[in-house]
Amino acid sequence: MSDRPARPERSAFKFFRPIATRWMDNDAYGHVNNVHYYSYFDSAVNGWLVEKGLLAITKSPVVGLVVESGCTYFESVAFPDALEAGIAVAHLGRSSVRYRIGIFKQGARAAAAQGHFVHVYVDRKTQTPVEIPTETRAILSELI
Amino acid sequence: MSDRPARPERSAFKFFRPIATRWMDNDAYGHVNNVHYYSYFDSAVNGWLVEKGLLAITKSPVVGLVVESGCTYFESVAFPDALEAGIAVAHLGRSSVRYRIGIFKQGARAAAAQGHFVHVYVDRKTQTPVEIPTETRAILSELI
Amino acid sequence: MSDRPARPERSAFKFFRPIATRWMDNDAYGHVNNVHYYSYFDSAVNGWLVEKGLLAITKSPVVGLVVESGCTYFESVAFPDALEAGIAVAHLGRSSVRYRIGIFKQGARAAAAQGHFVHVYVDRKTQTPVEIPTETRAILSELI
Amino acid sequence: MSDRPARPERSAFKFFRPIATRWMDNDAYGHVNNVHYYSYFDSAVNGWLVEKGLLAITKSPVVGLVVESGCTYFESVAFPDALEAGIAVAHLGRSSVRYRIGIFKQGARAAAAQGHFVHVYVDRKTQTPVEIPTETRAILSELI
Repeated sequence: MSDRPARPERSAFKFFRPIATRWMDNDAYGHVNNVHYYSYFDSAVNGWLVEKGLLAITKSPVVGLVVESGCTYFESVAFPDALEAGIAVAHLGRSSVRYRIGIFKQGARAAAAQGHFVHVYVDRKTQTPVEIPTETRAILSELI
Repeated sequence: MSDRPARPERSAFKFFRPIATRWMDNDAYGHVNNVHYYSYFDSAVNGWLVEKGLLAITKSPVVGLVVESGCTYFESVAFPDALEAGIAVAHLGRSSVRYRIGIFKQGARAAAAQGHFVHVYVDRKTQTPVEIPTETRAILSELI
Repeated sequence: MSDRPARPERSAFKFFRPIATRWMDNDAYGHVNNVHYYSYFDSAVNGWLVEKGLLAITKSPVVGLVVESGCTYFESVAFPDALEAGIAVAHLGRSSVRYRIGIFKQGARAAAAQGHFVHVYVDRKTQTPVEIPTETRAILSELI
Repeated sequence: MSDRPARPERSAFKFFRPIATRWMDNDAYGHVNNVHYYSYFDSAVNGWLVEKGLLAITKSPVVGLVVESGCTYFESVAFPDALEAGIAVAHLGRSSVRYRIGIFKQGARAAAAQGHFVHVYVDRKTQTPVEIPTETRAILSELI
């Protein structure tokens, strides 16, 4: 596990969004199951894209599809913990963007987990890659 | 469907808790799948029980198990809607409590859905029914 | 809880479909969380509708929306239990159908849980109720 | 995305287990949401560990906790697709094991997705790392 990334702090992220845990996030071992962190990532980033007017879930002609994701877990969390997702852009390509997300217990200095995912922008109908829309690119650029 | 309950308003509930939708709550039809409402119910009530000091999820010697649940859906909701769960106690028995929960879009007058579930209190080890603990009963009584 | 239905046996259902539990179905109490049963109901019925050629999830001009659901739990189940869902039609109306579903541990005589849900058929675009399509009605009639 | 792994074939895995998709796995874009693949990984490996007698979920004094996970997505899948998870051990350390998992449409030659996760074995009570139990190590060794 020599390639295990260092545990990031809050300063490593550009902005934060609240994440509410749910009863059923806790698995048989009493902590949030590793799977749900990916739902936190999706919800934090896509919720922000919708708020910024960059995504209309059922209508946008161009949408981001997840082609890669990953997470390193540093400390367990459990319902009913209140969490925060820190978000930054790790790489901005021609048709893809890589987000880096930190999951923090509310107010904690060090992340409980850090993950990433890559969105490839595609034409909704043909599902073939397209350039990231100009307005989206402008806003994503500020998060690098 | 003659037994379909009337759509309740906010005044039908005793207190409210916020519910955050998630990206993956939306199903192939673009709305929150009927299944997730039950997770909202669980999270709202159990989160409140934990806050009130009435439930320690991994330790309480007596816990509530769901033996019945149900929901009537009046209006669709979708991520990233912010929701609220209204909570009331519909029936308080010797070893069981029936909660009534309304799911509202934030600030809406009428519920988007109304559900219920019954908790039977059991001994954690033997899983046999026991009386509702005194302190819990006192607090639940205020929600009838 | 005087209206609690009797625990049904296999003969109360018309056909059966396998249900695979998942690790994360088990919650902090070590059993399948009450929420997931509703996912079993959805998956059993809709999977069958697709197989019968009665539903194309992303294309059918008329689809069934869940307007009511409920479940009574008789016995806990837990991952990695193999389950079966028994299905029957409890009521067939002009634009709605009520399914009754039993969840059985594989090979068990008595159901671990019994639930129901009501599908109202709607025009996919307008989301207004329509008559159940003729072919669907014919097949559903055999399940009463 | 130069480090994107090649799409693996069936021969890259040691054994296979069936995975059943669920209605609610499909998200608003009509395909299985990226999050659920991690639930497939968990369920395939832990289900196999239980069957082999290497894990008793609520009792084992030593259990594997996920400290890292990741997935590369090659092709979308959708409910009601029947899937298979191919499993192999990518690395076997003193207290940790790294699994590699391929998700295949039933009978497909090339994987729709490939993921991995790392289990660190810990004492259930103290949550501190311990050596992988001898019997578990012997069986995992056969999967390298």
